[in-house]
Parts: sequence; C-alpha cells; structure tokens
Amino acid sequence: MRRVRYSVAMSLDGFIAGPKGESDWIVMDPEIDFEALASSFDTVLLGRKTYEAARQMGGGPEMPGMQEIVLSRTLRQSECHGVTVSDDARNTVVKLKAEPGKDIWLFGGGSLFQSLLGMSLVDTVEVAIVPVLLGGGVRLLPDPAERAQLKLTKHRVYAKTGTVALEYDVT
Amino acid sequence: MRRVRYSVAMSLDGFIAGPKGESDWIVMDPEIDFEALASSFDTVLLGRKTYEAARQMGGGPEMPGMQEIVLSRTLRQSECHGVTVSDDARNTVVKLKAEPGKDIWLFGGGSLFQSLLGMSLVDTVEVAIVPVLLGGGVRLLPDPAERAQLKLTKHRVYAKTGTVALEYDVT
Repeated sequence: MRRVRYSVAMSLDGFIAGPKGESDWIVMDPEIDFEALASSFDTVLLGRKTYEAARQMGGGPEMPGMQEIVLSRTLRQSECHGVTVSDDARNTVVKLKAEPGKDIWLFGGGSLFQSLLGMSLVDTVEVAIVPVLLGGGVRLLPDPAERAQLKLTKHRVYAKTGTVALEYDVT
Repeated sequence: MRRVRYSVAMSLDGFIAGPKGESDWIVMDPEIDFEALASSFDTVLLGRKTYEAARQMGGGPEMPGMQEIVLSRTLRQSECHGVTVSDDARNTVVKLKAEPGKDIWLFGGGSLFQSLLGMSLVDTVEVAIVPVLLGGGVRLLPDPAERAQLKLTKHRVYAKTGTVALEYDVT
C-alpha cells in the first residue's frame, strides 16, 4: 500500500517555517538528493495555509508531474487551478492509499499533519533537522495533540551543513 | 573557560517534558553513559519551575557532589535547602563561567534556556531526541525567541531505542 510520508525540514526547536512563513533558514546541502526524494512521490498533500503561502510566493503548480491535492474545508475548487481541492481529508487519503502509485508526500503544514496523524493515516515522519533555533513559526506538530510513538528507521548526517536527516515510522 | 551546556532529552516535536511535567516518555538506552555525562559537570543550573517539579517529586538535592543553583526572581534562599538561590541570572552565570571548574549543566527548563540564550550565555545545546511525538508540554525553547544559529559538533545514534544524540555549538 502507498505510504503517506510527512517529509519536511525542521529547526531544532520544532518549526517547519518561520513566524512569517520564512524558509530562508533552510540550508540546501549539496549532498541531499532532492530529485531522488521527489521522484519517490507522485502525489502531494497540502493544507490550506501551505497552499495559499505557496500560491502567494509564485502561484501555480510547483511540482510538475505530481498530483497536488489541497485538503481544506473552506477553499473551493473553482478558486484553485492546477490542484484538486477536497473537504474530506479522511476519505480522500484512505482512497489515495488504496490506489496504485508511488508514495504520497504530506508536504505540510503542521495542522494537516495533526489531523491526519489523529486519523492514523500517516505512515512516516521524515525530518531534516537544520542547525538553527527559529524561536517561532509554524510547528512540526501544533499542540495539543495525542502522544504518538515513533520508530527510527533511517538516519544520515550531512557534514557540510550539519543537517541531520531522520526517518521514523509511526507505530 | 567553563561552558554552559543545555543538555536535555527532547521529543521529536520539541518538548523536554510532557503537559504535566511527565518524563515517562524518556527511554533509558542502556548504551547511554549517564555517569560520564554527569561527571563532566560540577554545577547545575535550574529554573524555578524545574526546581519545584524536582522538589515535588522527591525533594532535596538529587545530584550529590554538584553545586545546584536555582535562578529565580521569586524564590527565597530561606525556602530552599541544599541549593543556592539567585535572582540575578546574568551576573551569577558570568561569574560562574569565569571561575575554575568543570562545565555547567543547564538542566532546564526552557524558560531559563530562553533567558540565558538571549544573554549569549549558553555555549552548547545537546539534545537526545527520543522517538516520540508528545503533542504538548514544556518546550525546548519557548517562543517567541530570537533566531540562533547552531553548529553540529557531534552526533550518535543509539540503535536499541532509536534515540539520536546531537550536540551543537551556539554560534
């Protein structure tokens, strides 16, 4: 079955974006193979805020060849081009997981992760820990949320930038 | 010069204690050498809340041979036995760092770390990332705080429990 993988860059203090949505703190380590990462997915899940932030910064689908699905109770399909809008996160994700295909990239943000984690629909959490304390912003997992046990399955240290990539199964 | 080292266990979502101060999520990996860690310090810094939580759970100094210093503007020395109380964090820590001795353990909590980090008095951040999402509790670094750059200096993965120990210099 296709897995839903929450794959994000995170500051050591647990933020995936700065207070104003900044991503300027994310250092691009030349050894990280983003293409290989991206090619393991064919579908992207976005929450409303993440979608709107991405749209504001450039607009349009950013990931050619990927099916982009925005999970939102308030957005309308007619307002959004190049993406599929769904107001039923549970059924959409359950259905996607049962279909054939590559893995599903839970791109963010934290609120969507929180919802899907609460429905036991997230298979892995994959964080690239960037060596910075942001002190504010969008959290990996907004609180309060239920406690969830993880299992470390993979790790890699990128020496040039000090980025630490950790992969966990949600157990 | 003696270093102030913020050495704590942390959940992947950035908590150093649960919503009720719980530490039951901290798995004790048999390969982690706590004695070696503790023996690198001779002084412990505690914030008021951390001190009061420790006192409530057992009372008295928990670390024989260590000088315990509680940094608090409200506690009085006469209320606290076996520890030194100071209401002047900056001067106390500046003075301690200039004295001879082993390193200084910033034991917690997050608020004390936030204060001392803002005064550029913290040398390292050393986290043992426990494979769990707590979903609430005491944060590694309460927000809002200033952004701080880190430099990864050491890492170790403890295979049995999946704990990942990361050490950073504050730069």
